[in-house]
Amino acid sequence: MSEGSVIVLSGGVGGAKLAEGFAQVVSPERLTIVVNTGDDFEHLGLHVSPDLDSVAYMLAGVSDAQRGWGRSGETWECLEVMKQLGGDSWFRLGDRDLGVHLVRTQALARGASLSAATEQICCGLGIRHRVVPMSDRPIRTMIESDTGTLSFQDYFVRYQCRPVVKRCRYICLEGDPEPSHAFREALAAPGLKAIIIAPSNPILSIGPILAMNGVLAAIRSTCVPVLAVSPLIGGDAVKGPAAKILDELGIGRSATALWDHYQILDHLLVARTDVPNGEQARTGILAADIMMRDKAERKRVALRCLEILRLERDD
Amino acid sequence: MSEGSVIVLSGGVGGAKLAEGFAQVVSPERLTIVVNTGDDFEHLGLHVSPDLDSVAYMLAGVSDAQRGWGRSGETWECLEVMKQLGGDSWFRLGDRDLGVHLVRTQALARGASLSAATEQICCGLGIRHRVVPMSDRPIRTMIESDTGTLSFQDYFVRYQCRPVVKRCRYICLEGDPEPSHAFREALAAPGLKAIIIAPSNPILSIGPILAMNGVLAAIRSTCVPVLAVSPLIGGDAVKGPAAKILDELGIGRSATALWDHYQILDHLLVARTDVPNGEQARTGILAADIMMRDKAERKRVALRCLEILRLERDD
Repeated sequence: MSEGSVIVLSGGVGGAKLAEGFAQVVSPERLTIVVNTGDDFEHLGLHVSPDLDSVAYMLAGVSDAQRGWGRSGETWECLEVMKQLGGDSWFRLGDRDLGVHLVRTQALARGASLSAATEQICCGLGIRHRVVPMSDRPIRTMIESDTGTLSFQDYFVRYQCRPVVKRCRYICLEGDPEPSHAFREALAAPGLKAIIIAPSNPILSIGPILAMNGVLAAIRSTCVPVLAVSPLIGGDAVKGPAAKILDELGIGRSATALWDHYQILDHLLVARTDVPNGEQARTGILAADIMMRDKAERKRVALRCLEILRLERDD
Repeated sequence: MSEGSVIVLSGGVGGAKLAEGFAQVVSPERLTIVVNTGDDFEHLGLHVSPDLDSVAYMLAGVSDAQRGWGRSGETWECLEVMKQLGGDSWFRLGDRDLGVHLVRTQALARGASLSAATEQICCGLGIRHRVVPMSDRPIRTMIESDTGTLSFQDYFVRYQCRPVVKRCRYICLEGDPEPSHAFREALAAPGLKAIIIAPSNPILSIGPILAMNGVLAAIRSTCVPVLAVSPLIGGDAVKGPAAKILDELGIGRSATALWDHYQILDHLLVARTDVPNGEQARTGILAADIMMRDKAERKRVALRCLEILRLERDD
């Protein structure tokens, strides 16, 4: 990677927004977006990578802003037929989405890595920035809850995040949970200047990335500043169960709680409402307007990050 | 099956038309439609059964009359994405079609037989007549040609039927090529009164059915009349490579040639232009208007068959 490069660690929708903001202001050779694959699963024989797709769709400008997930202009012909025939229709599979899943599944079946399949998909979608899976190994987030141990999709889609989370585990189904080659390469790049933790769920989306073998140590040994953007605004998640899970695990949902949870932060960008006062204050916790409702707001938050990190913008 | 029951042996489009004609005039308890599965194949991990789908769509009234295959109102969103991403797009996979393939593939993955999966799909499509695969075993038609040995889809889609066919073989990938339980049951039913060979390709569609272990012997031992409707009009196929293949294999494309090829016929219904004269004449070869352009024409041909067989109509 070039001088002044950055890594963005991202989950799905919230992280995808900041990743897209960075893609607006940082040139492709300076940016690596590392995406959680702990939510990946097999559905009807297809390899589904929800977070990789969210990031790819956001960067390609084809994500559905109103629905908050999936592709714009999506159609549901296949799913309608499956419903009619009594097939498995709990997972909302769009026709365009299916095309991506089929291409990925076929690439993997031919022996390609998830990284290579992701590159093929992103290239086809016209994305110039590097989007890489956190790992080429099958790592799966398992949620120990009051309803038993659940896969991410069971927790998220079937149970709609209702079970009380007791613990999350990131299980590697084959071998050790190693980061992907591209992730390791980005961490080792001499030009690396910062690592950004996007506003994704700290437990379900960022957790699996940081839990892989050697990742925390590698981040620390880069000696570059680590900046997180809070996924909470007014102590609540913009979308998804982050606040509920942080409560259930006893971590709490304050800025200080996030700071302490991550352990590796130099900067934490939080909403103005969430800046701690008094003895809770930390010098690295900074306030900004971090809501990202559209392209301009995504760019603004990314620029604020670059400013804090004293990094140049390319736009 | 009830008294006066009939079996229709069918391939894809042409056979599906006559099968639908019979479904118009024969009640569900009297009719078993046995469908070729020699063209079945795995595509992108999906189990595709082209002839079963053609018959099901025709009976459900959702086949595309203009295109001549697939579903009416089909959309192609998934395929468009696959093309954009450099995926395998040689096989024209519609979104609605995909729903059927996914439901079938999932049923098979759960251990259901192809017969059970077909029943689920036909039931979901609102079909009341019995549509059964010729076999629950994976039988595949292999075409030995001047271009080498080709699978049916390679011959039909990739090479567009251009190679010269030297021989067709029907390979069973697991165990022996046994007819399905429902097919055997229909052949053994005491009420069986006739077996109809639909106007499908004699080599590629009817060939695999008759070549299975014990089928010819079982048909002969029923002692019921066997009636075929010719797939040729004016010595040419209405659709598909039947005439070309009959030539290439040295069988010929006359009514007499078909009669001699099948060996088990009591009646052969041919177009008025195709009735043999002079020494070629056979008493069982009868003329009729066998073109089936619409629902009324399909009914008319089925009624003509019932008349020849002296069987009652239920409509």
